[in-house]
Amino acid sequence: MSHPDADVYPIATGPAAETVAKHQDPQDLVFYCAWFCPYAARTWLALEEKGIPYQYKEENPFHKDKEFLEINPKGLVPAIKYKERALYESLVLCEFLEDAYPNTPPLLPADPLDRAYARLWIDYIVKSVIPPFQRLVQMQEPDKQRAALEDTIKAMRTIAEKVKGPWFMGEQFSLVDIVLVPWVIRDHVVAEYRGYSREAVGSGWKEYAERLANRESVVKTQSLEEHNMKIYRRYLRNEAQSELAKAIRAGKTFT
Amino acid sequence: MSHPDADVYPIATGPAAETVAKHQDPQDLVFYCAWFCPYAARTWLALEEKGIPYQYKEENPFHKDKEFLEINPKGLVPAIKYKERALYESLVLCEFLEDAYPNTPPLLPADPLDRAYARLWIDYIVKSVIPPFQRLVQMQEPDKQRAALEDTIKAMRTIAEKVKGPWFMGEQFSLVDIVLVPWVIRDHVVAEYRGYSREAVGSGWKEYAERLANRESVVKTQSLEEHNMKIYRRYLRNEAQSELAKAIRAGKTFT
Repeated sequence: MSHPDADVYPIATGPAAETVAKHQDPQDLVFYCAWFCPYAARTWLALEEKGIPYQYKEENPFHKDKEFLEINPKGLVPAIKYKERALYESLVLCEFLEDAYPNTPPLLPADPLDRAYARLWIDYIVKSVIPPFQRLVQMQEPDKQRAALEDTIKAMRTIAEKVKGPWFMGEQFSLVDIVLVPWVIRDHVVAEYRGYSREAVGSGWKEYAERLANRESVVKTQSLEEHNMKIYRRYLRNEAQSELAKAIRAGKTFT
Repeated sequence: MSHPDADVYPIATGPAAETVAKHQDPQDLVFYCAWFCPYAARTWLALEEKGIPYQYKEENPFHKDKEFLEINPKGLVPAIKYKERALYESLVLCEFLEDAYPNTPPLLPADPLDRAYARLWIDYIVKSVIPPFQRLVQMQEPDKQRAALEDTIKAMRTIAEKVKGPWFMGEQFSLVDIVLVPWVIRDHVVAEYRGYSREAVGSGWKEYAERLANRESVVKTQSLEEHNMKIYRRYLRNEAQSELAKAIRAGKTFT
């Protein structure tokens, strides 16, 4: 039986399609991605930021083919095959790229205290920004939407107040920005349908959000909005069947 | 109003009390711990394994005093003050100790692929071993207990099959073992009250569990069982009010 989310547009489009086309040659690192996935985006952005050679493979996580399940038994993107070994989990992959490619632009500070500080705020985004944002998208009842909007704005404001500028950690674009940006560039959905605005966050959030959205790696990995919206309309009706959508419905955090 | 969990025994006892007594002198690193907390145990074990000088401070996370809230606004242990900066979140702290003390015994492999592999299995323990174990402790309905027991055994077996021996990663005792051991040494609770047995896991789990329980750092950080059981009896009646207990009741993962 076909999965209701399985008919998402099958491939990247727009600027992302050009990026994908440039990464088809065989490489030591094979990157399994789904063009629309905000978790896979973390690893994709890290690869682009670091200029690591990679071979892009599009996977529809709703068609779990056998070859892919051998890479990640969970059947989730992102995943990586590197020297015949398989790795997955978006944050584990980002840390792996830091460790395995030390001569590329670092995405974590060198100082141990600053590294821990960055990881602490990544943890905050995962636990306190993404869940209310997704609840805001998926919840149907007005009172739950109001609560989720309040939680989203509050969590984003906490981040906004910590942004050293131009990026979260200051001059260095880091994994903190990377973990945040997939949600920032999707905020037009909640702006249009749920009463959210970047201005309501305050503390320079709008300017920071615009810097993030215009970052070259972010622009290069974007597909056409019409295909994104087709997916988001299922989330807005709380009909999506992704692991994220199911976790949010169950009141859980998805990392 | 006093918190129902606030009257836990206030200080470490038994072997842990001796360890605490040896770590009272001022040091660059101040470690805020609660003797009974399986999350704080991760950082405590890492400190002990690495032989890092630390000053131990007992915090009752149910009495959130002002000084401690300045260290961790969440009011949760473990936390660290290092060179006047505050850090928290148990896994962030473990990674910090790896980064900040490079000349101490490493708790992650040097090879980037192996490091990622270790982090992947830490993630598995956090998401797939601890939640069913805690559900098994807290759930009151027989059918929910049966399901939790099955999930616990299955997840532990997945780990057991990956143990290279003597430790998870082979000869190197690592953060994977550290994240697991606080739950392994509490399994007598589910053995006594919920029908769990190490033998039911199979694949050498019993032997691995015994090695973990007898590890010097583990033995040195244990308090007397009678004080642990007082806490666990509240969990077994699903009356505990810790953040972990509340998360499990709500069907969530707590990391």
